[in-house]
Amino acid sequence: MSRSPGRKQENHKISRELFVLTYGALVAQLCKDYEKDEDVNACLDRMGYSIGIRLIDDFLARSAVKKCRSYSETADMIAQIAFKMYLGVTPSVSCSSATGNEFSLILDKNPLVDFVEELPAERASLCYCNLLCGVIRGALEMVHLAAEVSFLQDRLKGDAVTEIGITFLRKPEDRKHRR
Amino acid sequence: MSRSPGRKQENHKISRELFVLTYGALVAQLCKDYEKDEDVNACLDRMGYSIGIRLIDDFLARSAVKKCRSYSETADMIAQIAFKMYLGVTPSVSCSSATGNEFSLILDKNPLVDFVEELPAERASLCYCNLLCGVIRGALEMVHLAAEVSFLQDRLKGDAVTEIGITFLRKPEDRKHRR
Repeated sequence: MSRSPGRKQENHKISRELFVLTYGALVAQLCKDYEKDEDVNACLDRMGYSIGIRLIDDFLARSAVKKCRSYSETADMIAQIAFKMYLGVTPSVSCSSATGNEFSLILDKNPLVDFVEELPAERASLCYCNLLCGVIRGALEMVHLAAEVSFLQDRLKGDAVTEIGITFLRKPEDRKHRR
Repeated sequence: MSRSPGRKQENHKISRELFVLTYGALVAQLCKDYEKDEDVNACLDRMGYSIGIRLIDDFLARSAVKKCRSYSETADMIAQIAFKMYLGVTPSVSCSSATGNEFSLILDKNPLVDFVEELPAERASLCYCNLLCGVIRGALEMVHLAAEVSFLQDRLKGDAVTEIGITFLRKPEDRKHRR
């Protein structure tokens, strides 16, 4: 079978809706499994991490990107290439610290919540899309970048936008200090 | 924001790998939750059904297909349009009964198992992709076609191909008779 690069690329593309609904089923299952929102969030983050450390190979192979020379370039690449490739959207990026290691990815529209109207009242602390934070954290770790990744704003919780915060940790002490 | 149909279509496309890995996380979670493979299979089927009854609207809206006039046409549409749209692959279809209501979708390659090497020995009865059966069953039900959908062969279990069987049920007695 002939396999031109174009053809291969095409084969990797799928429609988003099945993914979004399957993700919803996963979150619903975890909400059955765990009473506390914090436990669901932690589980989604762990699952995402496991996915990220595997997905990075696929990303590097297919995006053919070069090594980033700065945190800023890395944040741009996550937003403009990785988000576009895996979720079909491009968040805007802002640097939110003078020290240059904290960034925000801002999503006007979060494709993962396409079929979610609002969180149930008893799940007010749920970070519905926390898997994404784990994916980013895991993928970054595989290119030797330690980072903390979390939702800072979430439209599902009534915020104006959805904002994912990425803090690159320069030294081991950074992590300790922040916890 | 301008939104031509072409542009909208593009926005719905994502890379398959994140979906495949997320699906893997879902199955792994259910394997933690349920000891028996049969329970995992039933849960995946139920989840798929819930997804199918929602996904059908998206499918009808975006595929713009016309009403099928026969079971055979329906089976072809599932394989050639729905599978292509949602999973990026096109199974071949064969009719496996003289009565014309049993079809097989045959996948040489199952994209959902891209990252799965083999099932663990203690999960020999797991229908890893059983969500798909539920999706098809749910979607068909919403267009007033009752069907039984199950895996007949699975490459994950050493079969030469992966085969999904669809039996359209003409009358309520059919279902009863088969059970």
